[in-house]
Amino acid sequence: MDITSITEEILQRIRPTDKERAFVNDLMNELEKLAGETIEKLGLDVKPHFVGSLAKDTFLTGDHDIDLFLAFPLETPLEELREKGLELGKAIAERLDSHEVAYAEHPYVRATYRGVKVDLVPCYDVESWRDVRTAVDRSILHTRWVNENLKGRNDEVRLLKRFLKGVGAYGSEIYVRGFSGYLAEVLIVEYGPFLNVLRNADLILRKKIIDPGNWLKREYETAMNTIRREAGEDRPLIVIDPIDPRRNVSANLDWEKYGRFYFKAQAFLENPSREFFFPQKPKMGDYLGELRRKGTHLVTLTFYKPDLIDDILLPQLERSARGFEKALTREGFGVLGWDVGYSGGKAFIMLEVDRIERGRIMIKPGPEFFTERAADFYRKNERVWLRGKRLYAEKRVKENIADVIPELLEKNRVALGKGVRERIKVVEVLVDYVPKGMAREAYLLLSRKKGGLKD
Amino acid sequence: MDITSITEEILQRIRPTDKERAFVNDLMNELEKLAGETIEKLGLDVKPHFVGSLAKDTFLTGDHDIDLFLAFPLETPLEELREKGLELGKAIAERLDSHEVAYAEHPYVRATYRGVKVDLVPCYDVESWRDVRTAVDRSILHTRWVNENLKGRNDEVRLLKRFLKGVGAYGSEIYVRGFSGYLAEVLIVEYGPFLNVLRNADLILRKKIIDPGNWLKREYETAMNTIRREAGEDRPLIVIDPIDPRRNVSANLDWEKYGRFYFKAQAFLENPSREFFFPQKPKMGDYLGELRRKGTHLVTLTFYKPDLIDDILLPQLERSARGFEKALTREGFGVLGWDVGYSGGKAFIMLEVDRIERGRIMIKPGPEFFTERAADFYRKNERVWLRGKRLYAEKRVKENIADVIPELLEKNRVALGKGVRERIKVVEVLVDYVPKGMAREAYLLLSRKKGGLKD
Repeated sequence: MDITSITEEILQRIRPTDKERAFVNDLMNELEKLAGETIEKLGLDVKPHFVGSLAKDTFLTGDHDIDLFLAFPLETPLEELREKGLELGKAIAERLDSHEVAYAEHPYVRATYRGVKVDLVPCYDVESWRDVRTAVDRSILHTRWVNENLKGRNDEVRLLKRFLKGVGAYGSEIYVRGFSGYLAEVLIVEYGPFLNVLRNADLILRKKIIDPGNWLKREYETAMNTIRREAGEDRPLIVIDPIDPRRNVSANLDWEKYGRFYFKAQAFLENPSREFFFPQKPKMGDYLGELRRKGTHLVTLTFYKPDLIDDILLPQLERSARGFEKALTREGFGVLGWDVGYSGGKAFIMLEVDRIERGRIMIKPGPEFFTERAADFYRKNERVWLRGKRLYAEKRVKENIADVIPELLEKNRVALGKGVRERIKVVEVLVDYVPKGMAREAYLLLSRKKGGLKD
Repeated sequence: MDITSITEEILQRIRPTDKERAFVNDLMNELEKLAGETIEKLGLDVKPHFVGSLAKDTFLTGDHDIDLFLAFPLETPLEELREKGLELGKAIAERLDSHEVAYAEHPYVRATYRGVKVDLVPCYDVESWRDVRTAVDRSILHTRWVNENLKGRNDEVRLLKRFLKGVGAYGSEIYVRGFSGYLAEVLIVEYGPFLNVLRNADLILRKKIIDPGNWLKREYETAMNTIRREAGEDRPLIVIDPIDPRRNVSANLDWEKYGRFYFKAQAFLENPSREFFFPQKPKMGDYLGELRRKGTHLVTLTFYKPDLIDDILLPQLERSARGFEKALTREGFGVLGWDVGYSGGKAFIMLEVDRIERGRIMIKPGPEFFTERAADFYRKNERVWLRGKRLYAEKRVKENIADVIPELLEKNRVALGKGVRERIKVVEVLVDYVPKGMAREAYLLLSRKKGGLKD
């Protein structure tokens, strides 16, 4: 199948239908009216703005959450904005189907109306980056910029977003670190259409700096500061936000996710198929069979899941997994891979290791011989020797990983995520066996189907 | 037993007897006469000089090799010195019992006479460091400096030398890297008597720079260059040679050997005994029992011993052992210790490892994803994934160390000493077993009796 037939077919699947579009437009009109009435009733000086992919007409079919921003004048004190903003949100939401208060930098209202999620977010009515006071203030400017610059390439954004989702590189959440929707839009504006962005995956990485707002001409010092800061953080890309020279649009994109895009873009261009956009779920297999075939072992730590949202929990589980990787490597176990998640009220950290029994004796590095601690080390250990400046000794250690892990935890030798630290005190260590609810994850980890570049 | 009784008793054992001294003096007088006659007969302008511990009267009983240096005028061209020096040495040696030609920076004659080894070494008759042209030229100046500065503390040098021998820190050979005799003499001159040097083991290390010749006043720039150079090499001590500001007397002393001296000095002062000077040979034990007790494994590589002197062979075997340590660690085997040596025509490298079987699967780090080699890596490997910028893949590997070692050698993955590289191509890998001639070494390695700080 040729590449255009494929993208055309994909577009049929992801482009909102006329009916859907009419429904959404209806909804937005209704909400705008409702908001206007409520603002008037409360005697406020607030402008309602639709932002996000609906307002930019870059949403994928079925994915139509509404973001209604309530813009207060710049003179409003922050306290007042928080208070009145929430009050206004609640007043609007009371006329919708249901709602609750959610918390980001400041509180906002999450409502549902006719089956659609509606976020009612107070913000400042900014005209320029110099006015930006809270994290959400840029959204109105983003929406305006995209609408002014996209020039009808909305479907190209849809293709790119769907491609990024398909290859597992979409989502700017902290535990994903992929491409954001806005980044996809900027890339289409700069390098579109869709296929061109794919073709330029290597060029984009090499250029490194994308400056659609021409800030390097208009605000040289500010833009250079952004570049220096972000280069210092070793980001794969530095996309200076066209509406704010202080911000890197791709600050949350990591090398791994760019790498996935990079490889998959090449693979798609060489051998196009629908699979890139809508991959089949990996066929399930038997994790015990994988273990037998590979001769490796699976160590699973389970403990009660802390009551945290994914945005917080998953990065902390990942941090803890890396902590175990480091600690176990130091202890003589080779860690081949890991995964984290939760299932049925239990959080888990899975580690693929090369052995579960190690030798009884390990070498313990001591202090340098001329330090104060050296005399102590010399006295306390039986077999002591020098290598270079440092003292070494033999130490007897626990052999089985199921004994080593609790010991490491007890002695505080594992760097753990904050939210995990308490719960993991009551840990269960499962070796070469997982509960049914985790069997799928175990298989995906061992077979490298999760996170692998080849399917 | 108190410390003075011990040192007194040791002195009785190591101080040359009057009879020995008379014999040696006789010998030296005879040699001097013989040399004088030969020089006259050959019509040469050469002065014979005795150097070394005999000439300085710091030799231990029984240890009386004679160094007779034949000093040519400074104007002599180097070629002529080599030629005439060898001729003169041979002419003298012909009147002794036996001799052969040995090679250092230039050739010299090793003779024996009445059971004593006599080295006949040509050199320049230097008066100052500015005249020094060959490595041996300083010896005459060293001998003179010690004789002028030791002030009767000859027995203190003997004690220090014997102590250093006893604790395994004596010898400036490249494969020992311990204290030289001259360094011991300088330390006694600066910090003597013997017990004081021991008491100052920590102070000496902290001062770091010893300058008995006052070169920092007399030749500031030259001395500072020496200090800078040697500090750059991270030497434990910088002892500016009292007869040459360009030289660090302790350039060949490494941290480990200073550390042995440091610990043993403290231990002796706290708990004096004769053992420090004349340690008992470690009691032999059963290496197989050690292996069982420790749960570790012994891998011994044997191959035909290259025909090299110890000075060359041993450092190269050590280099190779370190090469194996690195390579095996990279391959997932934990190396706890190693030793090298030879026995019965076979050289050996022994490695104590934590296991002899590893897993079938290892993680192979690949190139960064945006490099040219990345596409190749991606194509060639089955399971590929990203971590940060880098590609990784699983690889199937040999499991037994007896298969891994030949493979590492074949693929040139071990840094080997030059003189060893060819011979090791025909290697035998012995696991948990050594030939009888190596059983002692195996036990000493596994029990940490060799090189250990505690006995």
